[in-house]
Amino acid sequence: MTQRVSIVGIGSTRFGPQPGKGIVQLAVEAAEAAIRESGIERERIGALYFGNFISGPLTGQEVLAGIVADHLGLANIPCTKVEGACASGGIAFRHAKLAVESRQCDAALVVGAEKMTQASTEMITAALNCAMDNLSDGVSGLTFPGLFGMAWRLYEQRYGLTRAQVSAVVRKNKANGLLNPLAQMGRYLTDDEIEQSPFICDPMRLFDCCPTSDGAAALVLAADELIETGGAVPVRVLASAQTRGAARIAGHSDLCSFDATVAAAHLAFKEAGIDRSDIDVVELHDCFSIAEILDSEDLGFMPRGHGAHWAKEGRTAVGGDLPINPSGGLLAKGHPVGATGVGQIYETVLQLRGDHQNLVKDAAFGLTHNLGGTGVACTVNILGRYDA
Amino acid sequence: MTQRVSIVGIGSTRFGPQPGKGIVQLAVEAAEAAIRESGIERERIGALYFGNFISGPLTGQEVLAGIVADHLGLANIPCTKVEGACASGGIAFRHAKLAVESRQCDAALVVGAEKMTQASTEMITAALNCAMDNLSDGVSGLTFPGLFGMAWRLYEQRYGLTRAQVSAVVRKNKANGLLNPLAQMGRYLTDDEIEQSPFICDPMRLFDCCPTSDGAAALVLAADELIETGGAVPVRVLASAQTRGAARIAGHSDLCSFDATVAAAHLAFKEAGIDRSDIDVVELHDCFSIAEILDSEDLGFMPRGHGAHWAKEGRTAVGGDLPINPSGGLLAKGHPVGATGVGQIYETVLQLRGDHQNLVKDAAFGLTHNLGGTGVACTVNILGRYDA
Repeated sequence: MTQRVSIVGIGSTRFGPQPGKGIVQLAVEAAEAAIRESGIERERIGALYFGNFISGPLTGQEVLAGIVADHLGLANIPCTKVEGACASGGIAFRHAKLAVESRQCDAALVVGAEKMTQASTEMITAALNCAMDNLSDGVSGLTFPGLFGMAWRLYEQRYGLTRAQVSAVVRKNKANGLLNPLAQMGRYLTDDEIEQSPFICDPMRLFDCCPTSDGAAALVLAADELIETGGAVPVRVLASAQTRGAARIAGHSDLCSFDATVAAAHLAFKEAGIDRSDIDVVELHDCFSIAEILDSEDLGFMPRGHGAHWAKEGRTAVGGDLPINPSGGLLAKGHPVGATGVGQIYETVLQLRGDHQNLVKDAAFGLTHNLGGTGVACTVNILGRYDA
Repeated sequence: MTQRVSIVGIGSTRFGPQPGKGIVQLAVEAAEAAIRESGIERERIGALYFGNFISGPLTGQEVLAGIVADHLGLANIPCTKVEGACASGGIAFRHAKLAVESRQCDAALVVGAEKMTQASTEMITAALNCAMDNLSDGVSGLTFPGLFGMAWRLYEQRYGLTRAQVSAVVRKNKANGLLNPLAQMGRYLTDDEIEQSPFICDPMRLFDCCPTSDGAAALVLAADELIETGGAVPVRVLASAQTRGAARIAGHSDLCSFDATVAAAHLAFKEAGIDRSDIDVVELHDCFSIAEILDSEDLGFMPRGHGAHWAKEGRTAVGGDLPINPSGGLLAKGHPVGATGVGQIYETVLQLRGDHQNLVKDAAFGLTHNLGGTGVACTVNILGRYDA
């Protein structure tokens, strides 16, 4: 018999440059906040999953799960770092959910963290390229802005994408970030400012790309019997799906779609037993502006080729049909890689509690989407208000 | 309801320098062998766990679980790299076992791999030190030979350890390695050769240290209903325990013992429902000669201070009371970090099938032990003959 799982405590650092704070310190700070809020005694925490991508190359520190557990004073529990490139945080969440659901333990801690801003641009680019299959794509000279730039060009040719439609995504997410106290670079931008920012990789300009970030986020998951009345408002975990997609560009049948996202969304909705129309708020993996459009279609929220129109028409803003990335997303909140998937859940929990500073009113169901590499790893999670 | 789990296919590359073969190629080679032997169709494999420690710093390749799954032509399944320093392989095994046991899937693939020998000694030393808590021990200048050298000195002072006792471990494991076709450096050594080999870190000499290795090992785990008659002889997974210990040297109450091993052994024997006296063969984490002595005591096979005597008296040789590391162990078989824990299980499966080249006759139960960092992560697994 499985047991139902809820998120009973959340914590997060600010995302963005945090000079003087190492990855362990950031992780401990987020985890302490989550544990404190949960009201669960640390002896009850039976597993720790740590999402991290490139701490080895960038900070020279691995075995982070055990080190952070030691700093937190947890018991002799299993502590595991999981890695799936940019989806590392979502994968950590899924494993903590499975640990509670399958009764390995009644409470589990998830931490996601990355420390990047101390490294040189060259080091960061090389480290991020660890997420490509370097037997094929890596040696081609391809980078991630290059990949998404190619997808942009294909989408443009197929559906008639305009620069203004993509800029609408940027404007929305950067403005959303202004309302998020954890966000790295919230800002009101005009189309002109976006469209005159320097090219990173044509057609991708500076404001189309998420920044390099430091940060950590943490969640405490628990079975119903550990939920105390009077503690933080619990949020139900209704589904957590993890899939793989093609690791090599040549394996993608269509650069405008990521199979891993399509498959994970299918599994997640099946597990949760709700429909796409039930979802009130989405945090998805907008590592680049164009990615938000592709992802929203892959998740099945609108027909192919319509994602760009939805963005331009304001249907994905707070107050629109389906608010996407009210946190600011990766574009404005930041992308400390291993923390990102955990941070998306943090934001969605605040929404479902009715506590978010950029609130989607009366949201009952939220979805998060975390995509790694060239689409090689994906998680989709569905959360629900405890009483929904 | 959980389901029982067996190992139904195994594969491994040789351990040792493999110039011209990258980590993906090594992993795919081992995995193809395991899948082929299992007779299980790849569409039935529902999860992949990949044990790896330092592929990021040493090869610039991460997201290995998804990449290897892609090369193997597996389905859109969850593919997860797990990391716990030198215990990464054991942690991968435990998660695959949990996936089958908790009915997430009926068959799962475990792969462990590391590619090290192409890197400079300086790069390797720096990468291995990612396993220390670098806020405390790393900055002290401590290395892993240094840590185990200190433990040796303490054990010597407390129990009157002799050089000849430690050399007995080296002689045994190096000689065992000669019978293992996968081993990197099997050899008949005299005490003189051992004791005149160069100091690595006093009192630790060259032959007291495991080598730097490339290699991969893989296992297919399955539920009973997938086991085909006429396929490879299945071996039961009776227990898999994962624990954490102190991440910092200052956190160890005794340098002659690792809490994580003591705790994992306790949990594993409880789960398996057998006694230490039932174990016929052991593969344990002899990263250094002295480690075999400490680990065998931590696992509870003999009283404190007796491990060294057992080694010297031949009680841990094949034919002795409790054969330890008949594969040659890390000292002779090699230590491709992420592969090691998976390779220990590979060897133990061969023993329980009666197929090992250095056979412990009529072995019914085997134990493997995989330890990471300065004792921060540990797994202990207990396997049993299918009919035992």
